[in-house]
Amino acid sequence: MKKLGLIAGGGELPVRLARQCVTSGRPLFVLRLKGMADPELAAFDGADVGIAELGKGFSALKGAGCEAVCFAGIVKRPDFSALKPDFRGLKALPGVIAAARHGDDALLRFLLGEFEAEGFSVEGAHDVAAGMTLPRGPLGKLAPGAPHMTDVHKAFHVAGEIGRLDVGQGAVVCEGLVLAVEAQEGTDAMLDRCAGLPETLRGTLDKRRGVLAKRPKPIQEQRVDLPAIGVATVRGAAKAGLAGIVGEAGKVLVLDHAAVAQAADECGLFVYGFDPLDLTADWAG
Amino acid sequence: MKKLGLIAGGGELPVRLARQCVTSGRPLFVLRLKGMADPELAAFDGADVGIAELGKGFSALKGAGCEAVCFAGIVKRPDFSALKPDFRGLKALPGVIAAARHGDDALLRFLLGEFEAEGFSVEGAHDVAAGMTLPRGPLGKLAPGAPHMTDVHKAFHVAGEIGRLDVGQGAVVCEGLVLAVEAQEGTDAMLDRCAGLPETLRGTLDKRRGVLAKRPKPIQEQRVDLPAIGVATVRGAAKAGLAGIVGEAGKVLVLDHAAVAQAADECGLFVYGFDPLDLTADWAG
Repeated sequence: MKKLGLIAGGGELPVRLARQCVTSGRPLFVLRLKGMADPELAAFDGADVGIAELGKGFSALKGAGCEAVCFAGIVKRPDFSALKPDFRGLKALPGVIAAARHGDDALLRFLLGEFEAEGFSVEGAHDVAAGMTLPRGPLGKLAPGAPHMTDVHKAFHVAGEIGRLDVGQGAVVCEGLVLAVEAQEGTDAMLDRCAGLPETLRGTLDKRRGVLAKRPKPIQEQRVDLPAIGVATVRGAAKAGLAGIVGEAGKVLVLDHAAVAQAADECGLFVYGFDPLDLTADWAG
Repeated sequence: MKKLGLIAGGGELPVRLARQCVTSGRPLFVLRLKGMADPELAAFDGADVGIAELGKGFSALKGAGCEAVCFAGIVKRPDFSALKPDFRGLKALPGVIAAARHGDDALLRFLLGEFEAEGFSVEGAHDVAAGMTLPRGPLGKLAPGAPHMTDVHKAFHVAGEIGRLDVGQGAVVCEGLVLAVEAQEGTDAMLDRCAGLPETLRGTLDKRRGVLAKRPKPIQEQRVDLPAIGVATVRGAAKAGLAGIVGEAGKVLVLDHAAVAQAADECGLFVYGFDPLDLTADWAG
């Protein structure tokens, strides 16, 4: 098993992946991005690097004997003019900036290319920790019923289309109406916004209506930046009065299956994985 | 000139249209939607009706001798289960609800069909008040320059595509990144959200970056619900650090040309009308 260099941005995902490697006995080295990586990651073998210290990062990974890398966690776009790149980072910077002008996906593809050019293979979080994705079917006790399926289809469709535009990975639809589309604000902020819409447009705690769909961008490099569902997603959807959350099975990360299922049951929501082929049949749109 | 029945929802647009009819000498009757229409409209010949009182509305318009109608102003989707329709409204309700499940545009088309079936011709706000739309070229002193054009193209493209999906009529792009897409929250809330994003992603008062594009939905019934730009839009864009606002010339309402131009100049933003053909040439994005 190749030793893994885990390139860790913010949030819970890198911590879970690191623990998973320890559990499964996979050799691990954590490249902690300064100002982003969770402090808990300091407990693992690794090094701290600035986001533009590409040379330092490559050296640390190679020195530790890593052959594969995995990008995980939240990395917000930096102010490129304020970066402090090392020599290797400086060499990559014009390409980074040019790629960034074509959107997030182009930027990530460029960075992956730089790592591959250095000889690393790139693994997705779902490769590192199989079983971390949303399974096909229900997570928890509830499942969408016939009255929800129009919204499920439409939310799935809109999430796919806005992904194709490299806008984002999520959309909320309630009784045919697209309530919100996710861009740079993130899923939690989008759900907050839905909770603030008039009750005539959305569901309520008494009468849940509407669906959040999460999908990877069809165009995207799926080894990085897969969409994720966590307990916060379930609580946010519940607050917005939604009936449930659907996602593309195998292509959406679930940060803690048991906790997400429990939160869904507590809130009375469904969390359900579909294969896109399940949904393309009879939807007239 | 056909007598106009102005069906007035909330906001400034119906007031401006009513004044425009008086100025141009066009006979006018205002159907004020209860709880929505601006109190100023009480000064015009007209009647007050609930949103589901379709029979009462038709009778009032016919009694007043109206042959044409114009839908203007903000009408939020009602809670269909809480409506109090009259007999004619009740007859239309199943069709309304079925159409609503296909989105806002389907709902509006259905309502227009009901008015046309009663013998009214339907005019857009831009028919009633020619010259109320965004002209081609700059409104105010500034115009987008070469560094803005990638964002202009992309924002225009994304706004068109999300319109095709019946999601909304606006998008914000900053240096290739789609910051936000408008759905049910409206343009002002979308711009507030952009202002709340990290400064690395957006422009600032010192260094303006990024563009808001507004376009009608390509699929939409353009006699209702054209997107609009007002002084609040300019102030919101300025607060979000944007370099400017672009819109589809002739297809975006401007609520007060002089005031919008003055606000744009004060804030140091461009407000500029493009024909889509101006923008399709060389954009690879």
